[in-house]
Amino acid sequence: MMPRMAEKSIEETEDFRPNFNADGLVPAVATSAADGRLLMLAYMNEEAVRKTIETGEAHYWSRSRKELWRKGATSGNRQRVVEMRTDCDQDAIQLIVEQTGPACHTGRRSCFYRIVDTPAGAKLQFVEEI
Amino acid sequence: MMPRMAEKSIEETEDFRPNFNADGLVPAVATSAADGRLLMLAYMNEEAVRKTIETGEAHYWSRSRKELWRKGATSGNRQRVVEMRTDCDQDAIQLIVEQTGPACHTGRRSCFYRIVDTPAGAKLQFVEEI
Repeated sequence: MMPRMAEKSIEETEDFRPNFNADGLVPAVATSAADGRLLMLAYMNEEAVRKTIETGEAHYWSRSRKELWRKGATSGNRQRVVEMRTDCDQDAIQLIVEQTGPACHTGRRSCFYRIVDTPAGAKLQFVEEI
Repeated sequence: MMPRMAEKSIEETEDFRPNFNADGLVPAVATSAADGRLLMLAYMNEEAVRKTIETGEAHYWSRSRKELWRKGATSGNRQRVVEMRTDCDQDAIQLIVEQTGPACHTGRRSCFYRIVDTPAGAKLQFVEEI
């Protein structure tokens, strides 16, 4: 009998098989194609991953509204996907995007607009105006 | 009676109150202080957040080993935290870090070393050697 080829590990395979969590979701981090800046973190289900690949526009799963959501569908602040990546364990996604307008629903460019004031730790310092 | 001051929304408060999920975790994204590059995504529980603030070294919660983990404790590839941020909903953390060695356990600089080959979608293209 031929020995069965050892299957490649999740870290080394060329097969894209996202590892969705118990809720069927995987976290997705959007970074700016223009300057690499971290814009936001949201979640994708299998349909969001598929729609993002099919359309080249970022789609996410809204956990609060429990529905598929094309980024910018209501705000106009859409994300054209320049590149999509996955990580070593395939349990996270990176979208490198051309962002129209602000990424954050508060009107800020990035959702990460507050620094945790260490070592105090309990206070936040705003670094971006609305 | 004095009217009670309206509490600031989670997006606008200066209070750091991370919104841990049902498992007591919040996703944490590490980016490079040197060039802004996305390095990894992991999870923090309350103790990991506290230890990170106290020590200035990135701590995470290992979901597979079910234990607190100081990044680099075994590999030496530690992360000195230059800045810690939270996002609009306070359900994600950003660590801007000085990374010693590679961030990824595979030996790559970043965990996001594979591009999803859209529109095919099912295949990955490696962009970083070990």
